[in-house]
Amino acid sequence: MSLLELAKNRKTVRKFKSDDIPTMEDVLYAINVAKEAPSGMNAQPWLFYIIKDFELKQRIRIECEKAEKTFYDRSKGKLKNWLEKHGFSWKKDFLTQAPYLVLVFSDKLAPFSRESVWLSIGYFLLALEEKGLATVPYTPPNFTDVANLTDVSKDYRLEVIMPIGYSNDSKPKYKRKELKEIVLFDENS
Amino acid sequence: MSLLELAKNRKTVRKFKSDDIPTMEDVLYAINVAKEAPSGMNAQPWLFYIIKDFELKQRIRIECEKAEKTFYDRSKGKLKNWLEKHGFSWKKDFLTQAPYLVLVFSDKLAPFSRESVWLSIGYFLLALEEKGLATVPYTPPNFTDVANLTDVSKDYRLEVIMPIGYSNDSKPKYKRKELKEIVLFDENS
Repeated sequence: MSLLELAKNRKTVRKFKSDDIPTMEDVLYAINVAKEAPSGMNAQPWLFYIIKDFELKQRIRIECEKAEKTFYDRSKGKLKNWLEKHGFSWKKDFLTQAPYLVLVFSDKLAPFSRESVWLSIGYFLLALEEKGLATVPYTPPNFTDVANLTDVSKDYRLEVIMPIGYSNDSKPKYKRKELKEIVLFDENS
Repeated sequence: MSLLELAKNRKTVRKFKSDDIPTMEDVLYAINVAKEAPSGMNAQPWLFYIIKDFELKQRIRIECEKAEKTFYDRSKGKLKNWLEKHGFSWKKDFLTQAPYLVLVFSDKLAPFSRESVWLSIGYFLLALEEKGLATVPYTPPNFTDVANLTDVSKDYRLEVIMPIGYSNDSKPKYKRKELKEIVLFDENS
């Protein structure tokens, strides 16, 4: 399969099969791919924290939903409309439903740390898709509160929470823009 | 080829064949892959500006090297050592040597705009590798000066310059950390 087919097939998933548990080997495969990404000064400023423990997933969910409630109460205008139209709410079932949560952290002191880590997340997503695994790159409103539930050093910043499992989500992939909407050429090309 | 092999094979390249020019089709293929990436609120906040014109590449190079000179003059300690050890200098030949420069911009107003764009750059790098094309995600010290050389709207922020062409660089890929250095497990996994 070409990378274009792989990328086109991949969609963000927010509903997971709780009882069908991917192997840790497959999750580690995706991290093995992600860590091949380039990074500023080759600092490789990423840290992948893998959670299987239900109680820890639940504590994370409670912490996130508390902040999400506040966020939804305050949201308005275009954002509020978009959230409602797409059926989103403060409830984040996927945080306990998915067999794994992978929390990705960036080394605060490394150069171009956040850029490098997000680039590697691009690698990670495609590798999960290759293994038939689904995820949503979930960014909670309260990163620090969630990070505090782990024992990861304060030198690292939580960038994203990725619930990982097999998809149970029939929602179609959101449409992408046409190439001509996102490409510009210098006048001589 | 598996994605792991593709990712492992890919290395950052700073020397390009000037006379061996990849097709625009291959460059656009990689953008087609990149635009399949997920993004905050599906805003797809990326813009790819493709430059073939030599004079524009030269203006960009002059602007970057001016800022690089200042940067190198000021660098010290760990950074200075790293730069010297790896044979880097303020000279950025690749900016005129590569047949293409692709400048990637992010929509300043979109949610999680920078994260989304860097994630899509991960997709982009792997797609270039699939087509046998090489690049270096180059971050100049003076993004705004470079952006001002283009006609891209001020609503967009320049994130990276990617010279694209066939590799003429025999430098090996930098070593990656072991999996165990970048993976943590919750105590019950």
